[in-house]
Amino acid sequence: MSLRVLGVDPGLTRCGLGVVDVERNRRATLVAVGVVGTEAGTALDARLLVIAEAIDLWLDTHKPDVLAVERVFSQLNVSTVMGTAQASGVVIAAAARRGIPVALHTPTEVKAAVTGSGGANKDAVGKMVTKILRLDAPPKPADAADALALALTHAWRRGVAGPGQTTAGSASGARAIARPPTAGLTPAQRLWAEAEARARR
Amino acid sequence: MSLRVLGVDPGLTRCGLGVVDVERNRRATLVAVGVVGTEAGTALDARLLVIAEAIDLWLDTHKPDVLAVERVFSQLNVSTVMGTAQASGVVIAAAARRGIPVALHTPTEVKAAVTGSGGANKDAVGKMVTKILRLDAPPKPADAADALALALTHAWRRGVAGPGQTTAGSASGARAIARPPTAGLTPAQRLWAEAEARARR
Repeated sequence: MSLRVLGVDPGLTRCGLGVVDVERNRRATLVAVGVVGTEAGTALDARLLVIAEAIDLWLDTHKPDVLAVERVFSQLNVSTVMGTAQASGVVIAAAARRGIPVALHTPTEVKAAVTGSGGANKDAVGKMVTKILRLDAPPKPADAADALALALTHAWRRGVAGPGQTTAGSASGARAIARPPTAGLTPAQRLWAEAEARARR
Repeated sequence: MSLRVLGVDPGLTRCGLGVVDVERNRRATLVAVGVVGTEAGTALDARLLVIAEAIDLWLDTHKPDVLAVERVFSQLNVSTVMGTAQASGVVIAAAARRGIPVALHTPTEVKAAVTGSGGANKDAVGKMVTKILRLDAPPKPADAADALALALTHAWRRGVAGPGQTTAGSASGARAIARPPTAGLTPAQRLWAEAEARARR
Protein backbone atom coordinates (compact mmCIF):
# COMPACT_ATOMS: atom_id res chain seq x y z
CA MET A 1 0.00 0.00 0.00
CA SER A 2 1.62 3.23 -1.07
CA LEU A 3 0.97 6.78 0.04
CA ARG A 4 0.26 9.33 -2.68
CA VAL A 5 1.29 12.87 -1.75
CA LEU A 6 0.61 16.05 -3.71
CA GLY A 7 3.20 18.67 -2.79
CA VAL A 8 2.47 22.32 -3.57
CA ASP A 9 4.93 25.21 -3.47
CA PRO A 10 2.40 28.05 -3.60
CA GLY A 11 2.81 31.30 -5.51
CA LEU A 12 0.95 33.52 -7.96
CA THR A 13 3.76 33.85 -10.49
CA ARG A 14 4.82 30.22 -10.24
CA CYS A 15 3.01 27.54 -8.25
CA GLY A 16 4.86 24.22 -8.23
CA LEU A 17 2.88 20.98 -8.10
CA GLY A 18 4.34 17.50 -7.66
CA VAL A 19 2.80 14.09 -7.01
CA VAL A 20 4.76 11.12 -5.69
CA ASP A 21 3.81 7.61 -4.66
CA VAL A 22 5.79 6.34 -1.70
CA GLU A 23 5.72 2.64 -0.90
CA ARG A 24 6.02 1.05 2.51
CA ASN A 25 9.58 0.06 1.63
CA ARG A 26 10.19 3.81 1.10
CA ARG A 27 10.70 3.57 -2.64
CA ALA A 28 9.32 6.81 -4.11
CA THR A 29 8.04 7.20 -7.68
CA LEU A 30 7.26 10.34 -9.63
CA VAL A 31 3.62 10.49 -10.72
CA ALA A 32 3.36 14.03 -12.08
CA VAL A 33 5.11 17.36 -11.80
CA GLY A 34 4.34 20.80 -13.19
CA VAL A 35 4.08 24.51 -12.64
CA VAL A 36 1.19 26.92 -13.15
CA GLY A 37 1.35 30.66 -12.83
CA THR A 38 0.39 34.03 -14.17
CA GLU A 39 2.00 37.29 -15.19
CA ALA A 40 2.50 39.87 -12.46
CA GLY A 41 0.33 42.42 -14.34
CA THR A 42 -2.75 40.17 -14.31
CA ALA A 43 -5.66 41.03 -11.97
CA LEU A 44 -5.51 39.24 -8.62
CA ASP A 45 -8.85 37.47 -9.07
CA ALA A 46 -7.77 36.11 -12.45
CA ARG A 47 -4.45 34.94 -10.97
CA LEU A 48 -6.13 33.15 -8.07
CA LEU A 49 -8.63 31.56 -10.47
CA VAL A 50 -5.76 30.00 -12.44
CA ILE A 51 -4.38 28.53 -9.20
CA ALA A 52 -7.84 27.37 -8.10
CA GLU A 53 -8.56 25.60 -11.37
CA ALA A 54 -5.12 23.98 -11.43
CA ILE A 55 -5.36 22.60 -7.90
CA ASP A 56 -8.88 21.31 -8.59
CA LEU A 57 -7.60 19.51 -11.68
CA TRP A 58 -4.60 18.02 -9.89
CA LEU A 59 -6.64 16.88 -6.89
CA ASP A 60 -9.32 15.31 -9.07
CA THR A 61 -6.88 13.74 -11.53
CA HIS A 62 -4.34 12.32 -9.09
CA LYS A 63 -6.54 11.81 -6.02
CA PRO A 64 -3.73 12.21 -3.46
CA ASP A 65 -4.06 10.74 0.04
CA VAL A 66 -2.66 13.94 1.49
CA LEU A 67 -1.70 17.47 0.41
CA ALA A 68 1.63 18.88 1.61
CA VAL A 69 1.96 22.67 1.34
CA GLU A 70 4.84 24.95 2.12
CA ARG A 71 4.17 26.94 5.26
CA VAL A 72 4.26 30.65 4.43
CA PHE A 73 5.89 33.13 6.77
CA SER A 74 5.31 36.84 6.86
CA GLN A 75 9.05 37.39 7.37
CA LEU A 76 9.66 36.59 3.69
CA ASN A 77 9.76 39.11 0.86
CA VAL A 78 6.85 41.42 1.70
CA SER A 79 6.14 42.29 -1.93
CA THR A 80 5.22 38.69 -2.80
CA VAL A 81 4.28 37.10 0.51
CA MET A 82 0.64 38.25 0.49
CA GLY A 83 0.03 36.75 -2.95
CA THR A 84 1.78 33.56 -1.86
CA ALA A 85 -0.43 33.36 1.22
CA GLN A 86 -3.56 33.96 -0.85
CA ALA A 87 -2.54 31.22 -3.28
CA SER A 88 -1.84 28.82 -0.39
CA GLY A 89 -5.29 29.59 1.06
CA VAL A 90 -6.93 28.61 -2.22
CA VAL A 91 -4.88 25.40 -2.41
CA ILE A 92 -5.59 24.35 1.18
CA ALA A 93 -9.33 25.09 0.89
CA ALA A 94 -9.53 23.00 -2.30
CA ALA A 95 -8.16 19.98 -0.43
CA ALA A 96 -10.36 20.66 2.60
CA ARG A 97 -13.45 20.73 0.36
CA ARG A 98 -12.60 17.18 -0.73
CA GLY A 99 -11.82 15.90 2.76
CA ILE A 100 -8.15 15.45 1.84
CA PRO A 101 -5.89 16.03 4.85
CA VAL A 102 -3.43 18.92 4.64
CA ALA A 103 0.04 19.13 6.17
CA LEU A 104 2.28 22.19 6.30
CA HIS A 105 6.06 22.01 6.22
CA THR A 106 8.56 24.85 6.45
CA PRO A 107 11.24 25.37 3.77
CA THR A 108 13.85 24.51 6.39
CA GLU A 109 12.14 21.21 7.20
CA VAL A 110 12.03 20.33 3.53
CA LYS A 111 15.68 21.17 2.91
CA ALA A 112 16.76 19.27 6.03
CA ALA A 113 14.68 16.20 5.17
CA VAL A 114 15.81 15.99 1.56
CA THR A 115 19.44 17.15 1.71
CA GLY A 116 20.34 16.85 5.37
CA SER A 117 20.88 20.60 5.72
CA GLY A 118 18.22 23.17 6.52
CA GLY A 119 20.35 25.76 4.77
CA ALA A 120 20.71 23.88 1.47
CA ASN A 121 20.25 25.83 -1.76
CA LYS A 122 17.75 25.07 -4.50
CA ASP A 123 20.35 23.25 -6.58
CA ALA A 124 21.06 20.78 -3.78
CA VAL A 125 17.34 20.15 -3.27
CA GLY A 126 16.86 19.58 -7.00
CA LYS A 127 19.76 17.13 -7.14
CA MET A 128 18.51 15.07 -4.20
CA VAL A 129 14.96 14.99 -5.61
CA THR A 130 16.47 13.73 -8.87
CA LYS A 131 18.34 10.94 -7.07
CA ILE A 132 15.49 9.88 -4.81
CA LEU A 133 13.00 9.70 -7.71
CA ARG A 134 15.55 8.19 -10.13
CA LEU A 135 15.07 10.97 -12.70
CA ASP A 136 17.40 11.80 -15.58
CA ALA A 137 17.63 15.48 -14.66
CA PRO A 138 16.33 17.84 -11.95
CA PRO A 139 12.75 19.00 -12.58
CA LYS A 140 12.62 22.59 -13.86
CA PRO A 141 11.84 25.26 -12.77
CA ALA A 142 12.98 25.03 -9.15
CA ASP A 143 9.38 25.45 -7.96
CA ALA A 144 8.56 22.06 -9.51
CA ALA A 145 11.47 20.39 -7.71
CA ASP A 146 10.45 22.14 -4.48
CA ALA A 147 6.92 20.75 -4.78
CA LEU A 148 8.32 17.21 -5.14
CA ALA A 149 10.68 17.79 -2.20
CA LEU A 150 7.68 18.87 -0.11
CA ALA A 151 5.79 15.73 -1.05
CA LEU A 152 8.78 13.52 -0.23
CA THR A 153 9.36 15.33 3.05
CA HIS A 154 5.80 14.74 4.09
CA ALA A 155 5.84 10.99 3.35
CA TRP A 156 9.13 10.80 5.18
CA ARG A 157 8.25 12.69 8.33
CA ARG A 158 4.97 10.85 8.55
CA GLY A 159 6.52 7.50 7.96
CA VAL A 160 5.05 5.79 4.94
CA ALA A 161 1.65 4.78 6.27
CA GLY A 162 -1.29 3.77 4.17
CA PRO A 163 -4.06 6.31 3.61
CA GLY A 164 -6.03 4.97 6.55
CA GLN A 165 -3.25 5.97 8.90
CA THR A 166 -2.82 9.45 7.50
CA THR A 167 -3.59 12.28 9.86
CA ALA A 168 -2.74 15.81 8.82
CA GLY A 169 -0.23 17.59 10.96
CA SER A 170 0.57 14.62 13.17
CA ALA A 171 4.21 13.73 13.64
CA SER A 172 3.58 10.66 15.76
CA GLY A 173 2.85 8.39 12.79
CA ALA A 174 6.51 8.31 11.83
CA ARG A 175 7.41 6.50 15.02
CA ALA A 176 4.58 3.98 14.62
CA ILE A 177 6.05 2.53 11.41
CA ALA A 178 8.70 -0.18 11.78
CA ARG A 179 11.68 0.78 9.66
CA PRO A 180 13.30 -1.96 7.57
CA PRO A 181 16.96 -2.70 8.38
CA THR A 182 19.29 -0.58 6.26
CA ALA A 183 21.14 -3.66 5.01
CA GLY A 184 18.62 -4.74 2.36
CA LEU A 185 18.01 -1.34 0.84
CA THR A 186 18.39 -0.26 -2.78
CA PRO A 187 20.63 2.79 -3.41
CA ALA A 188 17.57 5.05 -3.53
CA GLN A 189 16.23 3.57 -0.30
CA ARG A 190 19.62 4.04 1.35
CA LEU A 191 19.67 7.73 0.30
CA TRP A 192 16.24 8.03 1.83
CA ALA A 193 17.20 6.28 5.06
CA GLU A 194 20.36 8.36 5.39
CA ALA A 195 18.52 11.62 4.81
CA GLU A 196 15.83 10.55 7.24
CA ALA A 197 18.44 9.77 9.86
CA ARG A 198 19.90 13.24 9.34
CA ALA A 199 16.47 14.84 9.63
CA ARG A 200 15.90 13.05 12.95
CA ARG A 201 19.13 14.21 14.53
CA MET B 1 -31.49 49.29 -11.64
CA SER B 2 -29.57 48.79 -8.41
CA LEU B 3 -26.10 47.47 -7.79
CA ARG B 4 -25.77 44.60 -5.32
CA VAL B 5 -22.40 44.48 -3.55
CA LEU B 6 -21.10 41.80 -1.22
CA GLY B 7 -18.46 43.25 1.06
CA VAL B 8 -16.06 40.91 2.86
CA ASP B 9 -13.72 41.78 5.70
CA PRO B 10 -11.57 38.63 5.60
CA GLY B 11 -10.21 36.78 8.60
CA LEU B 12 -9.97 33.30 10.07
CA THR B 13 -11.25 34.15 13.53
CA ARG B 14 -13.96 36.50 12.27
CA CYS B 15 -14.83 37.06 8.62
CA GLY B 16 -17.43 39.80 8.16
CA LEU B 17 -19.92 39.55 5.28
CA GLY B 18 -22.38 42.24 4.25
CA VAL B 19 -24.67 42.65 1.24
CA VAL B 20 -26.19 45.97 0.19
CA ASP B 21 -28.34 47.08 -2.72
CA VAL B 22 -27.52 50.57 -3.94
CA GLU B 23 -29.95 52.33 -6.26
CA ARG B 24 -29.12 54.85 -8.97
CA ASN B 25 -30.43 57.58 -6.65
CA ARG B 26 -27.80 56.36 -4.15
CA ARG B 27 -30.28 55.01 -1.63
CA ALA B 28 -28.62 51.98 -0.02
CA THR B 29 -30.49 49.09 1.57
CA LEU B 30 -29.23 46.31 3.81
CA VAL B 31 -29.80 42.86 2.30
CA ALA B 32 -27.82 40.64 4.68
CA VAL B 33 -25.03 40.88 7.21
CA GLY B 34 -23.18 38.28 9.23
CA VAL B 35 -19.93 36.92 10.53
CA VAL B 36 -18.35 33.48 10.22
CA GLY B 37 -15.23 32.31 11.92
CA THR B 38 -13.40 29.65 13.82
CA GLU B 39 -11.46 29.18 17.01
CA ALA B 40 -7.73 29.92 16.89
CA GLY B 41 -6.90 26.33 17.92
CA THR B 42 -8.67 24.77 14.93
CA ALA B 43 -6.57 23.27 12.10
CA LEU B 44 -5.91 25.70 9.25
CA ASP B 45 -7.58 23.54 6.61
CA ALA B 46 -10.74 23.27 8.71
CA ARG B 47 -10.73 27.04 9.27
CA LEU B 48 -10.35 27.82 5.57
CA LEU B 49 -13.10 25.31 4.75
CA VAL B 50 -15.52 27.21 6.98
CA ILE B 51 -14.67 30.43 5.11
CA ALA B 52 -14.92 28.67 1.73
CA GLU B 53 -18.34 27.20 2.46
CA ALA B 54 -19.63 30.49 3.83
CA ILE B 55 -18.54 32.55 0.83
CA ASP B 56 -19.99 29.95 -1.55
CA LEU B 57 -23.31 30.14 0.29
CA TRP B 58 -23.37 33.95 0.32
CA LEU B 59 -22.42 34.24 -3.35
CA ASP B 60 -25.03 31.68 -4.42
CA THR B 61 -27.77 33.00 -2.14
CA HIS B 62 -27.37 36.72 -2.74
CA LYS B 63 -25.88 36.69 -6.27
CA PRO B 64 -23.99 39.98 -5.91
CA ASP B 65 -22.98 41.98 -9.00
CA VAL B 66 -19.57 42.56 -7.48
CA LEU B 67 -17.45 41.43 -4.53
CA ALA B 68 -15.60 44.09 -2.53
CA VAL B 69 -12.78 42.76 -0.34
CA GLU B 70 -10.49 44.51 2.07
CA ARG B 71 -6.98 44.76 0.67
CA VAL B 72 -4.59 43.01 3.04
CA PHE B 73 -1.20 44.47 3.79
CA SER B 74 1.79 42.63 5.17
CA GLN B 75 2.55 45.61 7.41
CA LEU B 76 -0.32 44.64 9.70
CA ASN B 77 -0.11 42.36 12.72
CA VAL B 78 2.22 39.59 11.55
CA SER B 79 0.65 36.94 13.78
CA THR B 80 -2.70 37.16 11.99
CA VAL B 81 -1.92 38.64 8.59
CA MET B 82 -1.03 35.34 6.93
CA GLY B 83 -4.34 33.77 7.94
CA THR B 84 -6.17 36.88 6.80
CA ALA B 85 -4.42 36.72 3.43
CA GLN B 86 -5.24 33.01 3.08
CA ALA B 87 -8.90 33.70 3.88
CA SER B 88 -9.00 36.57 1.36
CA GLY B 89 -7.51 34.28 -1.29
CA VAL B 90 -10.30 31.76 -0.74
CA VAL B 91 -12.94 34.50 -0.92
CA ILE B 92 -11.55 36.10 -4.09
CA ALA B 93 -11.16 32.74 -5.86
CA ALA B 94 -14.78 31.84 -5.02
CA ALA B 95 -16.01 34.98 -6.79
CA ALA B 96 -13.61 34.47 -9.70
CA ARG B 97 -14.96 30.93 -10.20
CA ARG B 98 -18.42 32.44 -10.71
CA GLY B 99 -17.27 35.24 -13.00
CA ILE B 100 -18.18 37.84 -10.37
CA PRO B 101 -15.86 40.87 -10.57
CA VAL B 102 -13.70 41.58 -7.53
CA ALA B 103 -12.58 44.95 -6.22
CA LEU B 104 -10.09 45.62 -3.44
CA HIS B 105 -10.27 48.61 -1.13
CA THR B 106 -7.90 49.58 1.64
CA PRO B 107 -9.13 50.20 5.20
CA THR B 108 -8.18 53.87 4.79
CA GLU B 109 -10.27 54.18 1.62
CA VAL B 110 -13.24 52.64 3.41
CA LYS B 111 -12.95 54.88 6.46
CA ALA B 112 -12.52 57.97 4.28
CA ALA B 113 -15.46 57.10 2.05
CA VAL B 114 -17.86 56.31 4.89
CA THR B 115 -16.84 58.79 7.60
CA GLY B 116 -14.82 61.41 5.75
CA SER B 117 -11.66 60.57 7.68
CA GLY B 118 -9.15 57.87 6.75
CA GLY B 119 -8.18 57.69 10.43
CA ALA B 120 -11.70 57.11 11.78
CA ASN B 121 -12.14 54.43 14.44
CA LYS B 122 -14.44 51.41 14.22
CA ASP B 123 -17.16 53.14 16.25
CA ALA B 124 -17.37 56.00 13.77
CA VAL B 125 -17.56 53.57 10.84
CA GLY B 126 -20.31 51.59 12.58
CA LYS B 127 -22.32 54.73 13.28
CA MET B 128 -22.14 55.98 9.69
CA VAL B 129 -23.08 52.54 8.31
CA THR B 130 -26.07 52.61 10.68
CA LYS B 131 -27.15 56.02 9.38
CA ILE B 132 -26.61 55.29 5.69
CA LEU B 133 -28.53 52.01 5.86
CA ARG B 134 -31.21 53.42 8.22
CA LEU B 135 -30.60 50.72 10.84
CA ASP B 136 -31.70 50.83 14.47
CA ALA B 137 -28.24 50.04 15.81
CA PRO B 138 -24.72 49.43 14.47
CA PRO B 139 -24.21 45.87 13.20
CA LYS B 140 -22.17 43.77 15.64
CA PRO B 141 -19.42 42.68 15.76
CA ALA B 142 -17.34 45.43 14.13
CA ASP B 143 -16.30 43.00 11.35
CA ALA B 144 -19.92 42.90 10.18
CA ALA B 145 -20.12 46.71 10.06
CA ASP B 146 -16.75 46.80 8.27
CA ALA B 147 -18.05 44.43 5.60
CA LEU B 148 -21.04 46.70 4.99
CA ALA B 149 -18.77 49.75 4.91
CA LEU B 150 -16.65 48.01 2.28
CA ALA B 151 -19.71 47.26 0.18
CA LEU B 152 -20.95 50.87 0.46
CA THR B 153 -17.48 52.22 -0.34
CA HIS B 154 -17.33 50.18 -3.47
CA ALA B 155 -20.73 51.29 -4.80
CA TRP B 156 -19.73 54.84 -3.97
CA ARG B 157 -16.32 54.97 -5.55
CA ARG B 158 -17.69 53.23 -8.61
CA GLY B 159 -20.71 55.46 -8.88
CA VAL B 160 -23.92 53.46 -8.73
CA ALA B 161 -23.91 51.81 -12.14
CA GLY B 162 -26.03 48.86 -13.18
CA PRO B 163 -24.36 45.44 -13.29
CA GLY B 164 -23.60 45.87 -16.99
CA GLN B 165 -21.32 48.77 -16.21
CA THR B 166 -19.47 47.04 -13.41
CA THR B 167 -15.79 46.55 -14.02
CA ALA B 168 -13.64 45.35 -11.14
CA GLY B 169 -10.90 47.70 -10.13
CA SER B 170 -11.90 50.50 -12.49
CA ALA B 171 -12.34 53.95 -11.00
CA SER B 172 -13.49 55.63 -14.20
CA GLY B 173 -17.09 54.43 -13.91
CA ALA B 174 -17.76 56.85 -11.06
CA ARG B 175 -17.28 59.82 -13.34
CA ALA B 176 -19.52 58.39 -16.05
CA ILE B 177 -22.62 58.50 -13.84
CA ALA B 178 -24.54 61.80 -13.73
CA ARG B 179 -25.04 62.76 -10.09
CA PRO B 180 -28.47 64.04 -9.07
CA PRO B 181 -28.55 67.62 -7.72
CA THR B 182 -28.01 67.66 -3.95
CA ALA B 183 -31.18 69.72 -3.39
CA GLY B 184 -33.68 66.86 -3.74
CA LEU B 185 -31.87 64.31 -1.56
CA THR B 186 -33.20 62.45 1.45
CA PRO B 187 -31.13 62.71 4.65
CA ALA B 188 -29.47 59.37 3.89
CA GLN B 189 -28.68 60.46 0.36
CA ARG B 190 -27.26 63.72 1.64
CA LEU B 191 -24.97 61.85 4.05
CA TRP B 192 -23.85 59.79 1.13
CA ALA B 193 -23.25 62.78 -1.13
CA GLU B 194 -21.36 64.61 1.59
CA ALA B 195 -19.15 61.63 2.36
CA GLU B 196 -18.60 61.11 -1.34
CA ALA B 197 -17.54 64.72 -1.74
CA ARG B 198 -15.10 64.28 1.14
CA ALA B 199 -13.73 61.10 -0.42
CA ARG B 200 -13.15 62.95 -3.72
CA ARG B 201 -11.20 65.82 -2.16
